[in-house]
Amino acid sequence: MFDWLPTPLLRLLGAAADNWGWLGGKLNALAINGIVGRTRNRPHPWSTFSPYISWQGLTDKTYQGRHLPATPPTIELPDWTAVAKLFARPAGAQLLSAKSTCLFPAFAQYLTDGFIRTDVHLDDDPVLKRRKTTTNHEIDLCPLYGRTPGQARVLRRLSEVSGQRGQLKSQILNGEEYAPYLYTPDGLTIRPEFMPGPLGEGLDKPLGMDRVPPERLASLFAFGGDRANATPMVAMVNTLLLREHNRLARGLDEQNPGWDDERVFQTARNVLIVMFIKLVVEEYINHITPLPFRLRADPAVAWDAQWNRPNWITAEFSLLYRWHSLMPDVIDWPGGPIPMNQFPTDNRPLIREGVAAAFVAIAGQAAGELGASNTNAFLLFAEEKAVEQARINQMAPYNAYRRAFGQKPAKRFDQISSDPKIQDLLKNLYGTPDSVEFYAGLFAEDRVKNSPLPGLLLIMVAVDAFSQALTNPLLSKHVYNNPETFSAWGRQQIAATATLEDVMRRNVPVPPAVQGLRMTQATWRPA
Amino acid sequence: MFDWLPTPLLRLLGAAADNWGWLGGKLNALAINGIVGRTRNRPHPWSTFSPYISWQGLTDKTYQGRHLPATPPTIELPDWTAVAKLFARPAGAQLLSAKSTCLFPAFAQYLTDGFIRTDVHLDDDPVLKRRKTTTNHEIDLCPLYGRTPGQARVLRRLSEVSGQRGQLKSQILNGEEYAPYLYTPDGLTIRPEFMPGPLGEGLDKPLGMDRVPPERLASLFAFGGDRANATPMVAMVNTLLLREHNRLARGLDEQNPGWDDERVFQTARNVLIVMFIKLVVEEYINHITPLPFRLRADPAVAWDAQWNRPNWITAEFSLLYRWHSLMPDVIDWPGGPIPMNQFPTDNRPLIREGVAAAFVAIAGQAAGELGASNTNAFLLFAEEKAVEQARINQMAPYNAYRRAFGQKPAKRFDQISSDPKIQDLLKNLYGTPDSVEFYAGLFAEDRVKNSPLPGLLLIMVAVDAFSQALTNPLLSKHVYNNPETFSAWGRQQIAATATLEDVMRRNVPVPPAVQGLRMTQATWRPA
Repeated sequence: MFDWLPTPLLRLLGAAADNWGWLGGKLNALAINGIVGRTRNRPHPWSTFSPYISWQGLTDKTYQGRHLPATPPTIELPDWTAVAKLFARPAGAQLLSAKSTCLFPAFAQYLTDGFIRTDVHLDDDPVLKRRKTTTNHEIDLCPLYGRTPGQARVLRRLSEVSGQRGQLKSQILNGEEYAPYLYTPDGLTIRPEFMPGPLGEGLDKPLGMDRVPPERLASLFAFGGDRANATPMVAMVNTLLLREHNRLARGLDEQNPGWDDERVFQTARNVLIVMFIKLVVEEYINHITPLPFRLRADPAVAWDAQWNRPNWITAEFSLLYRWHSLMPDVIDWPGGPIPMNQFPTDNRPLIREGVAAAFVAIAGQAAGELGASNTNAFLLFAEEKAVEQARINQMAPYNAYRRAFGQKPAKRFDQISSDPKIQDLLKNLYGTPDSVEFYAGLFAEDRVKNSPLPGLLLIMVAVDAFSQALTNPLLSKHVYNNPETFSAWGRQQIAATATLEDVMRRNVPVPPAVQGLRMTQATWRPA
Repeated sequence: MFDWLPTPLLRLLGAAADNWGWLGGKLNALAINGIVGRTRNRPHPWSTFSPYISWQGLTDKTYQGRHLPATPPTIELPDWTAVAKLFARPAGAQLLSAKSTCLFPAFAQYLTDGFIRTDVHLDDDPVLKRRKTTTNHEIDLCPLYGRTPGQARVLRRLSEVSGQRGQLKSQILNGEEYAPYLYTPDGLTIRPEFMPGPLGEGLDKPLGMDRVPPERLASLFAFGGDRANATPMVAMVNTLLLREHNRLARGLDEQNPGWDDERVFQTARNVLIVMFIKLVVEEYINHITPLPFRLRADPAVAWDAQWNRPNWITAEFSLLYRWHSLMPDVIDWPGGPIPMNQFPTDNRPLIREGVAAAFVAIAGQAAGELGASNTNAFLLFAEEKAVEQARINQMAPYNAYRRAFGQKPAKRFDQISSDPKIQDLLKNLYGTPDSVEFYAGLFAEDRVKNSPLPGLLLIMVAVDAFSQALTNPLLSKHVYNNPETFSAWGRQQIAATATLEDVMRRNVPVPPAVQGLRMTQATWRPA
C-alpha cells in the first residue's frame, strides 16, 4: 500500500513510525486498515455448505467460509500429473530463502495447524471431509490446550497443591520439561487418560499415524493438537509454550494465594493467548511484510473497524497456507542431518538433543523459498491433495481472486511470473490467464521484494491475519482493558515478549552469548 | 433519549421522521445508536461460566453472557415468600393495559422462546441448569425450524415434487394447514419420525409435559421449539409462520424451476427470518417504545456500528423477559372464555376455532399491565423460579444495572416506584435502595409514559433487541445486498410486510372488513 512512495521516503517514514509513538500508532492503524480494506469484510455470504446463500451456510461453522462463491470451471482442468510439474523441483538443489530461517516455517505450521483444520477424520466421505472443518475459528492455542474444554481437562494437572495450581501435565526428560507421552511405552496404544471418551474429553488421534512404527509413536507427546507432533520442530514450539504456560501458572499462583487451580489456569491461558497473538503480529507478520516499519499488535485498531466481525476460516485460507516448499530437504539437526522424509512424527531427536539446541539449529538454518518449482518430491502428495481440495470446493479462478483483493487481473502470463519456464508451464496447463486455477496461480507468482511470499498470497495472508487475530475476544475493548483479565503481573509478561526467542530464554538455558534466534536471518538486509 | 424535548416539538419531529425519507433515516440511526450506546458493547467480559474472565467464559456459548459480573449479595436476601408479595396480585381485578392487546404477549413469548433458553433439560443439576443455555444466540426462527440442521430435517417435507419443494411438513385440519401432530393419536408416545436420534435429529421434548393428560398431548404439534406449544396463542403464531414459509416455498419453487428442494427451503427461510426481524423491530419494538416516531429495521444502521459484535444472550436478558403479568386471567377465546390455568399445552381450542378466529380474539383482548402486584397466582411459581435463577447467578443489585445503563442509581424508594405500597414493600424487603435485587427492582418500577414497560427494563430490552436483531448475518452488508439472498420476489414479500396482520391476511381468510389486528389497541392514543 505504500509502494508508490520512493524508497528513501519510505525508509524515513519507517524510521519515524518505529520511533514516534503517536505517529507510529496512526501509521500502524492506517496500514492495517489499508490491508484489510482491500477486500470485502465478513460475514462472508458463502461457505462450503451450499453454493448459494443459506442460513445454515451463514451459521454452521463446521463448514469453511468462502471469499468467493463456488464457481464451476470453464475449461477442462488439467490432470494432477500435469499440474505437478508446476510445483515439483527440477533436478538440482533446492532454492533457499535469503530472508527466512526455519523458525519461520516452524512457527507458520504451528500457528496455522491451530485454526486451519480440514475435517480429516471424515475418512468415509472424502468429498465432505474436504468441505468440513473442525476449527474453532480463533487463535486459541488449541495445539496446546485442545479444541474443547474436555480436552483441556485431560491435559491439565488439576492440582490444588500450592506451586502446582493451574498447570498443564508435564514430565521431566533429561532434566527438561515436556508434555507427557501420548502412547504407552511400547508405542502400541494411546494411554487411557488421553483416549477419547463419551463426554468429548480425550485427545484427537494424531494425523497420519497409520504407517508409523511403534518406537516413534512412543516418542509422541500428549498435545492438544492432532498435528502438534508433526515434526520435532513443531513439537519444539508447543513444548516451549507448555513451559511458558506452567511458568505463568507458577507466577500467578504465587502472587494470588486465594486463587484455585481453575482460576490460575484460566488466567495463565488468557496471558499466553495474547502473548502468542503478539508474536503472530510482531514477529511473524513483520517477517512476512515488506513494509518499511514494524506493525504492532495494537488491539485498539480493531475496536472501531467495520472488519471486526466474527471470525470464520475460509476455504481460500485453508489452501493458501500450504507452504510445503519452505521445508528444507535436509534438517541440520544438532545431532546430525535428518532428511525431510525422516523428520515427521518422531520426537526422539528433540528429546535427545534438547529444546535449546533444537531452537538454535532451527533458527540457524535457511528455509526453502516459497513458490513454484521448489517442492520436495516427498511433499508433492500434499500439493496434489491441495489441488484436489480446491477442485472439490470449486474455487473461483486465480484472476477472480486478484480482482477480489484489489489487484488487476493478469492479462498475460508474464504478469503472473517473470520466469519464462513458469509462463510456459501455465500456458500449457491453462491456455489463458483467466483459466488459471487459484492454487496454481497463487504459488506461480514471483515473490514480492523483501517478502518471503508471492503477491496475491501475501495480501490474502495479511488480510486474514489481521482481521482474525485482532478480533480475538481477549483483545476486545472491555476485555483487554479489564485489569483482571491478565492481572498486572500477567500484563507485564505480555509486555516483556516481542519474539519467540524471548519466550525461549525464559524457559530454556541458552547461553546469553548466542543471539538473534529469529525467523529473519541475521544477515538479511532489505533491498 | 428525546425526553428532554417538549411534547409538541417531539410530535413535530416524529411526523417529520415518519414522512421525510432522508431525515427519517438519520433520526432512526441516531435513535438506535443512542439507545444501544447507553451501555458497554459486546463481547461481554463475563458469562455464567466463571466469576472471572476466562477463555472458556469468552467462547463457550452454552453459558449465558453477563452485562455485569457475578456479585455476591451484601445483605441476607429475603425469603421467596416475602418477595412474592411484590409480584402477587392483591385480592381484586387484574390491572389491564390501555395500550397492549394480547397479540403483544403472544408475539413476545414466541420471539423470546426462540433465543432465551435456559438449559431446562439438565434436571439432574438444578444449579448448572440455571447457568447454561441451549440458545443459538440468533433470531433464527428455531421455534419453527428447530435448533439444529438435524431438527430442521425432520420438520421438512423433503419432496422434489414440483409445487412441494422446500416446504415444511403439514397436515390439513378443518380445511386449514397446521404442523403435523407430535404425538401418536392416543397421546401416549412421540411419533417415531420426531423422536430424538443418534445424529442430533429429532425434536426437543416439549416443556412441562409431565402432568399433561394424553388427550391434550395428542393435540400438540411437531414444532421446532420446545415451548412453541406453550399455549394456543403461541402455537397460533408458529402456525401462521409455517403457512407463510410454505407459501414462500410455493412461490420460489414456481419462479425457479431449476431449484431443488434444498435451495427452495433455504431461500424461503432467508426471506422468512428477515421478514420476522422486520416484525420484531417495526411492529413489536415500536409498540414498546414511547418514541414519537416509528423506528425502522434499517440494516445499514448496524454496518458501521461499534456495537455490531457477535450476539450472546445474557443472564440479564433471560431474567428481564419474564413478563408473566401480561397474561390475562381469562382468555376471551372465540369458543368461550378459558381461565389462564387451563390455557397451556392444549391446542384443541386453536384447532376447533381456527387460526382466523383465534387471531381476531387475541388481537381484540387487552393484555395485563406489566409490573409489580399484578401476577396471577397461577404464575407466581414462575416468578419464584426467576428469583432463584437470579440468585444462583449472583446478579449484581438493581442499582448497579441502573448505573450500567446510563441511569442515576435510586437513592430513595420513591425513585423506583411512585406507589407508596410498593415503596413500603421494597423497604421491608431490602432496607435500602442499594440492596434491592435486580429482578425485584426491574418489575417494581413505574411504567414509562406511553410504553407498556418500566424504565430500566425498557432500556435493557431495547439495547438487546437492536444490538442482536440488526446484527443478524442475513442483514449484514454483503449478504443483505446480494440479490440472490432472497431473490427479487422474496425481497418484495419482505417489503410487503409491516405487521403480523399482513402475514395473517396472506394465509388466513379473515374478512377484509375486520381491521387493525395489532399489538396496540385501536383506541389507544399517546399521552
